[in-house]
Amino acid sequence: MTFTLEAKDAQSSARAGTMTTDHGVIETPIFMPVGTVGTVKGVHQRELKEEINPDIILGNTYHLYLRPGIQTIEKAGGLHKFMNWDRNILTDSGGYQVYSLSGRRKIKEEGVKFKSHIDGSYHVFTPENVMEIQRSIGADIIMAFDECTPYPCDYNYAKRSMHMTHRWLNRCINHLEKTPFKYDYSQTFFPIVQGSTYKDLRRQSAEYIANAGAEGNAIGGLSVGEPAEELYAMTEIVTEILPEDKPRYLMGVGTPINILENIALGVDMFDCVMPTRNARNGMLFTAYGSINIKNLKWKDDFSPIDDMAITWVDTEYSKAYLRHLFHANELLGKQIATIHNLGFYLWLTREARKHIIAGDFRDWKDKMVKQMNNRL
Amino acid sequence: MTFTLEAKDAQSSARAGTMTTDHGVIETPIFMPVGTVGTVKGVHQRELKEEINPDIILGNTYHLYLRPGIQTIEKAGGLHKFMNWDRNILTDSGGYQVYSLSGRRKIKEEGVKFKSHIDGSYHVFTPENVMEIQRSIGADIIMAFDECTPYPCDYNYAKRSMHMTHRWLNRCINHLEKTPFKYDYSQTFFPIVQGSTYKDLRRQSAEYIANAGAEGNAIGGLSVGEPAEELYAMTEIVTEILPEDKPRYLMGVGTPINILENIALGVDMFDCVMPTRNARNGMLFTAYGSINIKNLKWKDDFSPIDDMAITWVDTEYSKAYLRHLFHANELLGKQIATIHNLGFYLWLTREARKHIIAGDFRDWKDKMVKQMNNRL
Repeated sequence: MTFTLEAKDAQSSARAGTMTTDHGVIETPIFMPVGTVGTVKGVHQRELKEEINPDIILGNTYHLYLRPGIQTIEKAGGLHKFMNWDRNILTDSGGYQVYSLSGRRKIKEEGVKFKSHIDGSYHVFTPENVMEIQRSIGADIIMAFDECTPYPCDYNYAKRSMHMTHRWLNRCINHLEKTPFKYDYSQTFFPIVQGSTYKDLRRQSAEYIANAGAEGNAIGGLSVGEPAEELYAMTEIVTEILPEDKPRYLMGVGTPINILENIALGVDMFDCVMPTRNARNGMLFTAYGSINIKNLKWKDDFSPIDDMAITWVDTEYSKAYLRHLFHANELLGKQIATIHNLGFYLWLTREARKHIIAGDFRDWKDKMVKQMNNRL
Repeated sequence: MTFTLEAKDAQSSARAGTMTTDHGVIETPIFMPVGTVGTVKGVHQRELKEEINPDIILGNTYHLYLRPGIQTIEKAGGLHKFMNWDRNILTDSGGYQVYSLSGRRKIKEEGVKFKSHIDGSYHVFTPENVMEIQRSIGADIIMAFDECTPYPCDYNYAKRSMHMTHRWLNRCINHLEKTPFKYDYSQTFFPIVQGSTYKDLRRQSAEYIANAGAEGNAIGGLSVGEPAEELYAMTEIVTEILPEDKPRYLMGVGTPINILENIALGVDMFDCVMPTRNARNGMLFTAYGSINIKNLKWKDDFSPIDDMAITWVDTEYSKAYLRHLFHANELLGKQIATIHNLGFYLWLTREARKHIIAGDFRDWKDKMVKQMNNRL
């Protein structure tokens, strides 16, 4: 993988760059739609490519490992072939999912023993086997196995956990060196900064991760319930330390406003279930604020879903029709809202990139943050 | 509406025709995908048009009346505009839905009092108000209000009910004469033959309906649980009596085999929830038999869903991937299977038309019926 910085904003830490992998170019800043089990929920691969047009999507190691299982993915020739997606994929390491399994998992130095949410069967994730699993899934970017701490988190727990995540990182790196690529393209490994919401821990972790000399770096353990101010404070501390010439990925973030603010702090890559999950609940994001399409006010509003017409659904269907679909609990409602929201998120990061290159990112960002704060 | 017969099969009663309404041409035989509440479940209007390509779809008066409600549809300018579908639509009269509400409705000479399945509220359908509701929905073809009898049905009940359906037909016709079109296109009215599975009643009803002189005629009260032989026997009796120069619509039928057999008996139009509902349960119809995609045998079968490639989903996704989506209960699984099944049903009726015109329908039909009887 290569990464070239193309522009830096003079009034913020925002950057525009280009990553290149064996599956093509990723222009940053980028939002990566979440395709948990090898499908971005409710969206055909063709629509994803042609209408939403992301350079990269995300898959979840925990989910894919349980279903369809690594054997099936290997037989298919990797996740790209299994799901018929020829652009980039990033897989997380399962660290976050394991954290979400609270009460159904036991974290030890060796690894994590957990109970499947599907059938209650027991499994173990270690830094070593998670690297092998990610080799089998075959994403272009693979993540270190880490512990994601909750919010709030006791200082001593956060510190101990961070050190364990660092030791796990060494085990990941050692094991990857012994584990060749499974398919005819290479994979890039990103380590993850932890440290909860403690500035000194975040600094220490960022330095440790920076020293690992990876081709890209991630910030984990955020977007777990902390106020936006703490999220921004942690990002700022970490991006100041992480190398400038490597892409920076802020995991699991966030609202459109969170994304713009973190771009301003020097983040290049994002993923979040928010645009897709909220879509399935009838919440639409737009450049002028968010819409709860189930509300009575849209009952007889036959205007297009979004005049901006970022994707074809925005003008193909009216607000009243979409509201009706949600009230009747129709699949098509979820499909339309998902395409709309992902289209908007990708538009937003593409627009951010344009403004960084044009040199007016800061003003544009401030205007957008104000606008997007509305509830329509 | 005009109807021209283009070809008649020499070895069966199959016909190929063309109906023309203000929303365009309908080539028969035709299968009409069911769009209950103004959406063919899981399919974008654009996909429906471009990939599945039916000349006409169906909406349900009962469902649309309850939700979004007639006021909203009227304000939108009719169902075509509300759902953004510019081809033909047919609405049923609610007679079948009312029959399905068994235990929550009371049928009297005046009409039917029923309880909404959504909120338990009480409503009344009469031949008169159902005509007005269908004027407001604005379908191109609208149906008489009838009673659909259950199977099996006591002879005396079936006879009384048939006579009531005939009296209701007169009330429908009288009321329609006083009720102008609501939008800038015309509507065509189809009466419905009843009579349960009794030959003499079916004959009597078919004669009564034929005498009404409508522009098209329907056969109702079948596909309610009777064996296929009884279905075919009733269709045969009725199609022999219904005028040859008018389209014949067999309501709620059926499997791909049922459709071909009834085309052979002189039916021109069909609708059924089977391709869409079964799709959502993981059952696929193909020219070589049906597939339960959830079965273990497809787990590592990476071949295309259907080599025939009628719609793009057939080659875009593999059987193993589709099976995975169903096991993970993913929306995309239902979407893919629905497009596949509807694509297949429309292919089947288009193919039937071609063979009727080519003069080899009977042989082709016999071959297809044999093939499609398999479970793959």
